[in-house]
Amino acid sequence: MLYLPIIVSIFSLVFAYFLIGEVKKAPSGSGKQIEISLAIREGAIAFLKREYKTVAIFAILLFFILWLVLGLKTALGFLVGAFFSALAGFIGMMVSTQANLKVAEAAKSGLKEALDLAFKGGSVTGFLVVGLSLLSVSAFYLLTKDFEALIGLCFGASLIAIFARLGGGIYTKGADMGADLVGKIEKGIPEDDPRNPAVIADQVGDNVGDCAGMAGDMFQTYVVSLAAAMLLGKLLFPNLPQAIFLPLILSSIAILASIISTFFVRLPKNQSLIFALSKGLIIAGILSAIGFFPIIFRLAPILKFSPISLYLPVLIGLLISFFIFLITYFFTSKRYSPVKSIALAAQTGHASNIIAGLAIGMKSTLLPVILISIGILISFALSGMYGLAIAVVSMLSLTGLIIALDSYGPITDNASGISEMAGLPEEVRKNTEALDAVGNTAKATTKGYAIASAGLAALVLFSAYTQELLDLGKKVQFVLEDPRVLVGLFFGGIIAYYFASLAISAVGRTASKVVEEVRRQFREIPGLMEGKTRPEYSKCVDIVTKAALKEMVLPALLPVIFPILIGFILGPEALGGLLIGSIIVGIFIAISMTSGGAAWDNAKKWIEEGNLGGKGSFAHQAAVTGDTVGDAEKDCAGPAINPMIKVLNIIALLIVSFLV
Amino acid sequence: MLYLPIIVSIFSLVFAYFLIGEVKKAPSGSGKQIEISLAIREGAIAFLKREYKTVAIFAILLFFILWLVLGLKTALGFLVGAFFSALAGFIGMMVSTQANLKVAEAAKSGLKEALDLAFKGGSVTGFLVVGLSLLSVSAFYLLTKDFEALIGLCFGASLIAIFARLGGGIYTKGADMGADLVGKIEKGIPEDDPRNPAVIADQVGDNVGDCAGMAGDMFQTYVVSLAAAMLLGKLLFPNLPQAIFLPLILSSIAILASIISTFFVRLPKNQSLIFALSKGLIIAGILSAIGFFPIIFRLAPILKFSPISLYLPVLIGLLISFFIFLITYFFTSKRYSPVKSIALAAQTGHASNIIAGLAIGMKSTLLPVILISIGILISFALSGMYGLAIAVVSMLSLTGLIIALDSYGPITDNASGISEMAGLPEEVRKNTEALDAVGNTAKATTKGYAIASAGLAALVLFSAYTQELLDLGKKVQFVLEDPRVLVGLFFGGIIAYYFASLAISAVGRTASKVVEEVRRQFREIPGLMEGKTRPEYSKCVDIVTKAALKEMVLPALLPVIFPILIGFILGPEALGGLLIGSIIVGIFIAISMTSGGAAWDNAKKWIEEGNLGGKGSFAHQAAVTGDTVGDAEKDCAGPAINPMIKVLNIIALLIVSFLV
Repeated sequence: MLYLPIIVSIFSLVFAYFLIGEVKKAPSGSGKQIEISLAIREGAIAFLKREYKTVAIFAILLFFILWLVLGLKTALGFLVGAFFSALAGFIGMMVSTQANLKVAEAAKSGLKEALDLAFKGGSVTGFLVVGLSLLSVSAFYLLTKDFEALIGLCFGASLIAIFARLGGGIYTKGADMGADLVGKIEKGIPEDDPRNPAVIADQVGDNVGDCAGMAGDMFQTYVVSLAAAMLLGKLLFPNLPQAIFLPLILSSIAILASIISTFFVRLPKNQSLIFALSKGLIIAGILSAIGFFPIIFRLAPILKFSPISLYLPVLIGLLISFFIFLITYFFTSKRYSPVKSIALAAQTGHASNIIAGLAIGMKSTLLPVILISIGILISFALSGMYGLAIAVVSMLSLTGLIIALDSYGPITDNASGISEMAGLPEEVRKNTEALDAVGNTAKATTKGYAIASAGLAALVLFSAYTQELLDLGKKVQFVLEDPRVLVGLFFGGIIAYYFASLAISAVGRTASKVVEEVRRQFREIPGLMEGKTRPEYSKCVDIVTKAALKEMVLPALLPVIFPILIGFILGPEALGGLLIGSIIVGIFIAISMTSGGAAWDNAKKWIEEGNLGGKGSFAHQAAVTGDTVGDAEKDCAGPAINPMIKVLNIIALLIVSFLV
Repeated sequence: MLYLPIIVSIFSLVFAYFLIGEVKKAPSGSGKQIEISLAIREGAIAFLKREYKTVAIFAILLFFILWLVLGLKTALGFLVGAFFSALAGFIGMMVSTQANLKVAEAAKSGLKEALDLAFKGGSVTGFLVVGLSLLSVSAFYLLTKDFEALIGLCFGASLIAIFARLGGGIYTKGADMGADLVGKIEKGIPEDDPRNPAVIADQVGDNVGDCAGMAGDMFQTYVVSLAAAMLLGKLLFPNLPQAIFLPLILSSIAILASIISTFFVRLPKNQSLIFALSKGLIIAGILSAIGFFPIIFRLAPILKFSPISLYLPVLIGLLISFFIFLITYFFTSKRYSPVKSIALAAQTGHASNIIAGLAIGMKSTLLPVILISIGILISFALSGMYGLAIAVVSMLSLTGLIIALDSYGPITDNASGISEMAGLPEEVRKNTEALDAVGNTAKATTKGYAIASAGLAALVLFSAYTQELLDLGKKVQFVLEDPRVLVGLFFGGIIAYYFASLAISAVGRTASKVVEEVRRQFREIPGLMEGKTRPEYSKCVDIVTKAALKEMVLPALLPVIFPILIGFILGPEALGGLLIGSIIVGIFIAISMTSGGAAWDNAKKWIEEGNLGGKGSFAHQAAVTGDTVGDAEKDCAGPAINPMIKVLNIIALLIVSFLV
């Protein structure tokens, strides 16, 4: 039984390798498509290499600090976590940037073929991430049996996650905003127009943000949730190794369920793409629930739980995922009132559109947080903190598919861009655009899931932190009346707000640089606007790369340094408050930004379909403003909150023994 | 000594009466000015009357519920609180709407005369509020000696506060946005142009929002902080009535200091208006600090404190006020980098301007919250929860002047509007515009103060809630690991976000209605654009009045009903978590919205001064968008958070005995 996780994770990697082969086999198309795709690929690889180089400097520094302070094992764990996370992101992105032009080519044959290939391309990243994370946690634990070293591994994954989310987010939205601000608004040329000098940088951004960024983020959530649940198992059930292995076995079953479910993602007769993708998720959930059943019923009595009181949290985890998916869909889909209300507000101008989107973003936090709260209360009531930890592990069941859906986004986005730039026939472009539109919705819904699971994972980490304190013989009470706890809560809010502020203004600054460059090229290169000369794409790529790398450092280091300062200056009570404060405030910021951002995006798309005057109307101009603001929120600042709150909690676990 | 508060509060009212006489004495000017001012006055009175009628329905209902559930005394206290708060707002606004045209007239003589009169007009509301709140609390307590009844009084004040902030905020910004969206953006006519059909509604809004709204809010903060400090004094020092009276005596001294300091608000030789106004605040703070000294040193030993450990919190309260004033000034003044960065971002378009403003708003939370945290830690360390309560009472010292500065805003804003509409000479308009510009900055800085004091007052209320539970014999622990507390914290965040969402979208919806009406008038009334015919001002006034009254009800009732549900369903632990959650999350939302909003406003003003292309440039158009979004944030949703978090805490205190 102990080797099941290792076998399954290797199987997951083999499956990913098989999918890579499938993608490689597909035809690539002709001259211009390949040329454009290559440019994107080169830009993406160049950025990721430079990003990893920057991160490597910090990683090496941190490796030695960890070695000195916590010993070699923890330092090695740190390297393993960082390496595997980076690897998953890198390979996934390599495949994405190959899949994009092949999807454009497949779209010539039809929607069905294109969907099939795009989803396969996305699934590569998905199964790489879950495979590598389960493999690293289970193998590393079996080898070392050392929890501190495992937390080190989580820290390594966290470092990559926060840099990948920030670097990728700043890159993708800096380029996107810069391209749109001049292209769409000043020059009135369409999205993905090859005359726009920032168009390649924009396409590169989709890959480094949505593919590599999301991969790093979910790798971290996966590793961290597993490790925290295992640690809690050890602390709460000192002599029962089953409590440690249960999370690993549940994950193994879920991965098998996910692999099976991918075969059900097929275009139905009514051509509904979103139905095809959701079907995969639902089947994965049901198969997991069935697979968990015998394991839970065998292990629960050993842990002195009634089987049902441990199985219900598992179901709750799956249900939370499912409903958050639905809620996010409601708030971000063109079909429903929230998005339409934003579009309608655009009729009275830019400001009305912004206000409506801000309001919808804030409103969209209500139901997910209620759902999370109910989940917490029930899981706790049934089986205490361990129940919540198991619920979180159960939520992870869908991770492989969720990442697949998210990585599907940049592939189809790129495919659509390549079709546009290569001037493929109208029919092909219609197919790629249909795929792209669904990609946007899919991306939005996966973010709701990512935040909810990150928030709950962080709560499990917090609980591990308090248990560790107890285990170290220090009776620390986190009481709200304690001014240190109270101040800690405030500091948790401070770090969430300051971090989001840094991230969002980094996008703004990067975009400004792109705007200046794009304006310069239109001014100085003769014949560019007429399409007679080619713009200097690489200049824009270079500018965005440099800006993103520079801007990501400060916000990424904030959650590493801040909790150490608070912990040592104000003590473990304040640090505990900080952890909870960052989770509470962070979840609200993240949900409101990602849902609000996606709603703005789709409000614009709804108008572009011909509603309220369609493209070029007054309402459309206002909607473009909302979309641009939303981009910075939903693809950079909002999702970067996820790794941030987990980093804080990991740091707290690493320093806890020095605080007592 | 016990009668000092009553004597001082009556003295404060007499001083306000004297100031009213001064304002009435001033000349009113000629025909057109009076005509415009009358229109504003009528609109303002009509709105306030209808607002109070709506509130009266709820008040009567709540009166009977309170009578039934908590007894007649508490129900009467509720009525007293509601009545005095409404009275202060109403008289203050009556004077403001008279002072506006007299300031316009005085501006003909010079800046000095105009400042003098505008400040006197604002001071009426200031000293009415502090006088009536101190009078109601001290007289009511002396008569009843019943703390539950006193909490009833706080509830009455809270009801008016939340309705006044919401109703006034939705009114003022709905009208303002509506006027700007068509007038400035679509038609290209200047601010306050008499051709704009919404211009009178806009002027009315300044009064009902900034004067009556702020008065209600600060009346609540004053009453609530005093009552909470007194209640804590009773609970922590059962046999020492001095602990109950100390807050009242400190307030009395502070009011005397404030009255003296008004005589120092004079235009200095360098004509710096902001210096003149700040001087008043600094002198009031220094005089209060000196006056507190002998009282604290006499009473501290009786309460078993060393004099210094009770005097330092007093100083901390004053210092927090002072520094928050400075910090908000830095983030919202045209002189410094935050505002300039927003203006610079406007060069690359609407979206960049919005993103920059959002980032600055979030960033501006950092220092005030750190300051509040330091204040909490030191006060607690020196003299426990009572020390924090005394620090909050000390912060209130500046309330009279702060309200004066805030009410100065609508007076000068109106004066500037009247000058513009009545076509007064260029020189006069320059004077009123200079006053108006300072009014904007003053308003922004007072909001930072209002939030900080509201947040700390709410913390004192929370502490009273926990002490009451203890006093009732129920040992309730608010531990972060407790899922009920955790979920309570989440629910506190939910209510803050949902409330802000409702408030901000109410502004958007109201503005949309105004936009439609203004567009209709421009379309249907011939000769309007050419200035040959008068628009139908009253139609706009009527539309805004109805919309504001309708929209304010749901968000106002939310903080009344929600804590009752949570308290009875999930118990006192969850309710405690909710209180703290709403304070933590609420402070961040409120500061980021008010500071960010004011920064957008002044970024636009900075461009209008001729920077980056000046009025009509591309950057200016983008800055107008930011300003409009900021208006909804800084004058409605943001400041309405203050009464909201206090209402939650008051409700908790009212229902606490039923929870055990």
